[in-house]
Amino acid sequence: MEILPEKNGPWTIRSWKIIHDSQWLRLTEHGVTQPDGSEGQYGVIQFKNLAIGVLPLDEDGNTWLVGQHRFALNEYSWELPEGGGALDTTPLETAKRELREETGLSASDYHPLCFFFTSNSVTNERAYGFLAWGLQEGEASPEPSEELKLREIPFRELLEDVISGKITDGFTITMVLMAAEKARKGLLPEPAATILKAQID
Amino acid sequence: MEILPEKNGPWTIRSWKIIHDSQWLRLTEHGVTQPDGSEGQYGVIQFKNLAIGVLPLDEDGNTWLVGQHRFALNEYSWELPEGGGALDTTPLETAKRELREETGLSASDYHPLCFFFTSNSVTNERAYGFLAWGLQEGEASPEPSEELKLREIPFRELLEDVISGKITDGFTITMVLMAAEKARKGLLPEPAATILKAQID
Repeated sequence: MEILPEKNGPWTIRSWKIIHDSQWLRLTEHGVTQPDGSEGQYGVIQFKNLAIGVLPLDEDGNTWLVGQHRFALNEYSWELPEGGGALDTTPLETAKRELREETGLSASDYHPLCFFFTSNSVTNERAYGFLAWGLQEGEASPEPSEELKLREIPFRELLEDVISGKITDGFTITMVLMAAEKARKGLLPEPAATILKAQID
Repeated sequence: MEILPEKNGPWTIRSWKIIHDSQWLRLTEHGVTQPDGSEGQYGVIQFKNLAIGVLPLDEDGNTWLVGQHRFALNEYSWELPEGGGALDTTPLETAKRELREETGLSASDYHPLCFFFTSNSVTNERAYGFLAWGLQEGEASPEPSEELKLREIPFRELLEDVISGKITDGFTITMVLMAAEKARKGLLPEPAATILKAQID
């Protein structure tokens, strides 16, 4: 939506203005003619980063959670390694960097797990999740604005915490459930498939 | 975050200001002292509605998808019935209203399926999903700003579309995968459990 389009689906766009523009997001307001002919307004939050997440998996079926206080919620949250990636960097590159920064881990193999829009009523934020295996441990290097805890957890236990509602981060929930479902349906490469299947049966 | 708290996890809040305030959201910017002592800024998007979703299920294992053009994406999207609910209305009340408005369906039973934050790095949007059964058909009554299509689909087929990436709405993906996983683990009431199990085996 860099250039004002004349049409956006059933809406005719008459005008638009930038309300706020920062490093992270741009908020715009659009004057539109609605499907029934009446006039209306649409606010859109354009994200300037992709949401990138990784589900790292070791040979024993363990994965890693990152614990952090989420400013927007004023709540503590345990999540799979996630972070923002520049729009001109491939999701895979960002996934590798985020995994290394937040956990110190590097992985020999990455497999695309899911793609989705996190909240499409008002934002255009896109999320890309990866499954990663062939892990090697190293030194974590979190950003100065982050205060992270790290926890190793069997995938089986994490799946239980997702189902019970203990995990509240939507992206983590989606990656975990998608990994379980794809493992069941035989849609993941080896050795990840066998490792995960042992965790969900 | 109605009143400026002194602390938000590891951050000390020095100041804040409202940048944009509408019927739908409030964008605020917070001056903070970071964990390492340096000064920083946090932008937060507070949503003024809850995200409410429903997975309706009939006796034969069919559910319903709503098709609509999403303005924020400039893309067409097929999704389970979803909508915004006022913060002072219970998620269940909104779920009943949204299901009726978008599909014409009413349900005799509702079961809480999932709760999560859709995008917790910058927003505080909360999502509540329900499984609904005991369906009766009626007249849909979409809002004038909406141009909706309706499609009946077996749960089995929707689950395939979620796994293949054909469905891109995060909330729909989460509800479908959670329903499948909870059905497998025997965590849903009858008759929904038996109906769903027949769809996933």
